[in-house]
Amino acid sequence: MSTQNKAVVYVRLKEGVLDPQGVTIHKSLQQMGYDDFVSVRSGKFFELEIKADAADMDKKIEEVSSKLLSNPVIENYTVEK
Amino acid sequence: MSTQNKAVVYVRLKEGVLDPQGVTIHKSLQQMGYDDFVSVRSGKFFELEIKADAADMDKKIEEVSSKLLSNPVIENYTVEK
Repeated sequence: MSTQNKAVVYVRLKEGVLDPQGVTIHKSLQQMGYDDFVSVRSGKFFELEIKADAADMDKKIEEVSSKLLSNPVIENYTVEK
Repeated sequence: MSTQNKAVVYVRLKEGVLDPQGVTIHKSLQQMGYDDFVSVRSGKFFELEIKADAADMDKKIEEVSSKLLSNPVIENYTVEK
């Protein structure tokens, strides 16, 4: 049995929020001749290793996701365990 | 039926490559009192919308993942469809 747990927090821009990195990549793809791509949206994720004996982690992961890992004004996050 | 297909490319630093963003976030978590986290690794992902009638997309997605979306020297990528 693993002595650690893991969670992944995925952070993406809310719908309607401009994604300059995605737009730039999309333009580059077109310039490179890849014209089958309709759009590109970028996001980030964080792999968290957690102590096996940690308590109350669901709550703590939600807290750090909204306080530190994402900007709730413009970003959404999802947690995968 | 959707008129578009979607693929997500996840890009992460190779094992052994220093992740300053992850290290900084881990330190911040500890300073905030969250000491149940053993480590944090950061990564990015790209959601690609693809034309429904596009051909040969598996190959093209592999190409753009290694040429544009990731740096093969220090990063790995995985594709999810």
